[in-house]
Amino acid sequence: MSRVSFQTDPDRYRHWRLTIDGPVATLAMDTDEAGGLRDGYELKLNSYDLGVDIELYDAVQRLRFEHPEVKAVVLTSAKDKIFCAGANIRMLASSPHEWKVNFCKFTNETRNGIEDASKNSGQVYLAALNGTASGGGYELALACEHIMLVDDRSSAVSLPELPLLGVLPGTGGLTRVTDKRRVRRDLADCFATKSEGLTGQKAVAWKLVDEAVPRPEWNRTVASRAAELAARSRRPGGPGITLTPLDKKVTDDAIAYRYVGASLERAGRSVAITIHGPEGPEGPASPEGPASPVDADFWTLAMTRELDDLILDLRTNEPELGTWIFRTEGDPERVLAHDRLLLGSTDWLATETLLYLKRTLKRLDVTSRSLIALIEPGSCFAGSLLELALAADRSFQLAGVFEGTEGSEADPATITLTEMNLGALPMSNGLSRLNTRFFGDPAALEAAAAAKNRPLEAAEAAELGLVTFAPDDLDWEEEVRIAVEERASFSPDALTGMEANFRFAGPETMETKIFGRLTAWQNWIFHRPNASGPDGALRSFGTGHRPDFDKRRV
Amino acid sequence: MSRVSFQTDPDRYRHWRLTIDGPVATLAMDTDEAGGLRDGYELKLNSYDLGVDIELYDAVQRLRFEHPEVKAVVLTSAKDKIFCAGANIRMLASSPHEWKVNFCKFTNETRNGIEDASKNSGQVYLAALNGTASGGGYELALACEHIMLVDDRSSAVSLPELPLLGVLPGTGGLTRVTDKRRVRRDLADCFATKSEGLTGQKAVAWKLVDEAVPRPEWNRTVASRAAELAARSRRPGGPGITLTPLDKKVTDDAIAYRYVGASLERAGRSVAITIHGPEGPEGPASPEGPASPVDADFWTLAMTRELDDLILDLRTNEPELGTWIFRTEGDPERVLAHDRLLLGSTDWLATETLLYLKRTLKRLDVTSRSLIALIEPGSCFAGSLLELALAADRSFQLAGVFEGTEGSEADPATITLTEMNLGALPMSNGLSRLNTRFFGDPAALEAAAAAKNRPLEAAEAAELGLVTFAPDDLDWEEEVRIAVEERASFSPDALTGMEANFRFAGPETMETKIFGRLTAWQNWIFHRPNASGPDGALRSFGTGHRPDFDKRRV
Repeated sequence: MSRVSFQTDPDRYRHWRLTIDGPVATLAMDTDEAGGLRDGYELKLNSYDLGVDIELYDAVQRLRFEHPEVKAVVLTSAKDKIFCAGANIRMLASSPHEWKVNFCKFTNETRNGIEDASKNSGQVYLAALNGTASGGGYELALACEHIMLVDDRSSAVSLPELPLLGVLPGTGGLTRVTDKRRVRRDLADCFATKSEGLTGQKAVAWKLVDEAVPRPEWNRTVASRAAELAARSRRPGGPGITLTPLDKKVTDDAIAYRYVGASLERAGRSVAITIHGPEGPEGPASPEGPASPVDADFWTLAMTRELDDLILDLRTNEPELGTWIFRTEGDPERVLAHDRLLLGSTDWLATETLLYLKRTLKRLDVTSRSLIALIEPGSCFAGSLLELALAADRSFQLAGVFEGTEGSEADPATITLTEMNLGALPMSNGLSRLNTRFFGDPAALEAAAAAKNRPLEAAEAAELGLVTFAPDDLDWEEEVRIAVEERASFSPDALTGMEANFRFAGPETMETKIFGRLTAWQNWIFHRPNASGPDGALRSFGTGHRPDFDKRRV
Repeated sequence: MSRVSFQTDPDRYRHWRLTIDGPVATLAMDTDEAGGLRDGYELKLNSYDLGVDIELYDAVQRLRFEHPEVKAVVLTSAKDKIFCAGANIRMLASSPHEWKVNFCKFTNETRNGIEDASKNSGQVYLAALNGTASGGGYELALACEHIMLVDDRSSAVSLPELPLLGVLPGTGGLTRVTDKRRVRRDLADCFATKSEGLTGQKAVAWKLVDEAVPRPEWNRTVASRAAELAARSRRPGGPGITLTPLDKKVTDDAIAYRYVGASLERAGRSVAITIHGPEGPEGPASPEGPASPVDADFWTLAMTRELDDLILDLRTNEPELGTWIFRTEGDPERVLAHDRLLLGSTDWLATETLLYLKRTLKRLDVTSRSLIALIEPGSCFAGSLLELALAADRSFQLAGVFEGTEGSEADPATITLTEMNLGALPMSNGLSRLNTRFFGDPAALEAAAAAKNRPLEAAEAAELGLVTFAPDDLDWEEEVRIAVEERASFSPDALTGMEANFRFAGPETMETKIFGRLTAWQNWIFHRPNASGPDGALRSFGTGHRPDFDKRRV
């Protein structure tokens, strides 16, 4: 199949209608049955595939950056009697294992992004279920802060995956029902095994929705709730910025943007990713008056958009390239100047930019690829970009310089730890990458933090535990080569499992549960014949045949 | 194959040597190569299978109950140059998926039991690695509080599962390396991909072992460390009790002990389990003077031993019986009298009995079977036995009585909540089952706790959220029948995944990570062709063929 692109804009949406009325936006799902990303299925009943979710992600992003005036978003359906039937079953049943898993991951990330908007941007999501919300449809509603269900005796909320399809609700449903909506576990068990779900006041009584509203009062009540949510928001209003199309060039062995480049090393099954620091002789312009210091060209925002797109592209289109090797190039001081501007500003766009970088780095944390950071002379692993090294499974910093180099590369490689690394960009577990790295070892964390705001050469960085290895020129090439080759020789599955365990240290949150535990169980279930075999429930669904289960409990 | 039995005693051990010298016991692994539980593999290099671990579990249990004088346990090997090579690879490679998973679960539970002894019984485990400890062998060492490695240039600790076998260390290794020993995640990644592991002082520097001791000083140093650990223990000494053989009868459709009975309903794929309360007209005898109130016949201990054995038996031998239905029969007052005696005593044996009940209930929590509790007239779901209902995925309490019944069954069913349910028997997450049930809803927890120490009929119990459903005589039979039949109709895998998600609410601990996350990833990896397919790493190991991996990252 052709390469999946994650770039779109509202003019090109086939499945969503975005309308904005003052402080309230309405995002109405209206899937085009014939608009599936691949052949072989129809997107009936507002069921979705990756293409539908790519548009949703785009809308959620644009609402944050382009519409500071929008304070409440009503998520609803443009179809009668159905809100959303969840992920398309035929699409799932006919997809390879890694496609299903990658699709669920992206869908999860978009749901988490919706919660991030509600919580951190004052752009609060309201689910207006004007018809049945089943499976992933109800899970989408669960990502909203307030859920309204039309009370018409037939519209229900349900999680029918287990009874009908032999799989789990794949996008956080089990976790959000208990941990977010606080449904008691035995009732959650009943709900998740009840294919028809619950309607009206019973759904309210079980805490599955916040209110059930009769149809005659529906429109008025939805408008009223949206207005209430908007009235509570501290979002500033005013004009937004336009997320212009990315300047992206794709060839068979490279993907290039303005600041981010990737070289696809197919023979070695790795990708060499280079992030370029800010350009120009000066730091970012300081704002005069009330103007925002950030615009669409601001390096952090532009670079983050490119990195985000690259992660999504590689995850979906290049599953065999199992190791991503990160390098940076540029002046650390310019990176730090941009960081300071963001951290020092109370401007909404500076905040949005930081939140977006946070989400993008989280996306890296849950990426099932081995991540290696190479810290070489001429690099700029400082502040925000140091997070790439801290996110990596291992990092190498050159001790000294490469023999015979000149210019900026004749100075030893350094890293610089700043406030940006001490809490501004938390992981899914709620902690900074630095804190997670030293979890349970407060003395090491303190020692590292005490070394902030100055360039650290390899020996000191290694001593402080900020990098994994610090080989010199003599050993560098071989050590790095062995690490990358070794990674390519291992079982890709075992690496995925190991990395998922090591990357999430420390406390557990709803997000880490979703990515760490729920995803692992779902991966297993997706792969079992009871779901995906010829007689499994996923493939039997809709055929009239009953699934034939291996009855042994594992 | 024949039914696996979990009952043994030191006179029958084939793989371990248990010696006791005052306050120090030595448990030396010495596997009998020809003593595998099944055919087709030899237990070379102190590798283990389920049979080896059954003996280890027996030894750990007996040390706690039969040897209050033992304050430190040295876990070592009776073989030269090798401590333990971990789980036997040929056994794993030739085992069905559910066998592998069940084997790992039991092995994990025994490791957790070792940590429980160190932490809560003052019987502290010391790993004396007199040779290489690889894979599960090093994981066994990780369950000990202090790890000594002989420093002879060849003896190493390693986790070679990922590089050599394409699977994860299956018994907590990844979690304990980071969360218990606080190895930094990037170093943990390097260690877990380095098949040869680390030796001597380098293993100390990486925090993988606590000390490396040259061979000439080995025996003296081990003895000295064991004596130090023993000297710090508050364990009382004195005589222990004998864990006499269980009175167990197994037929094709029933398993019967003195207090616990199970009826195997093969057609419906369920097991009806009945726990009988204490017998006799009186409560337990109150102790006179310093004598322990508990002996080997004390109901709580005897019942717990039976329940523990039944759980292990059914998990291993009856994988197709997917739903366990719990009933109790007896006088709630007598259960409560036993509970009071245990909770009111500072005697070591009372403490051990409570800790054992705690571990057995935890075993139930991680059992991959649907658990249903039926609370009927004549039952005794009070205090300790109420935990069975709180552990269940759902519970039914009869409102009123069954029409036409007489005697004790003419009184409505009640449950009684006591101090026993408020923290004495914590789950793996560190919380009581009651607290877990109401996690995030402190008002509901408080209301339930306020109803303690009095019998609650169905309506009140349901109102307080202590039971799931409270049908009356008219609906009881059909509601229960549908619940059980429905469970049997679902995908066993999806049920396992759902239950594993719902049962572990609230905070995360090393144990919940091991059972909730690590296990899920391992299940998936075990099931993937990259490990268990004909060309997978697990089956290629030792054949001279390199595994052929599907290179797509999932």
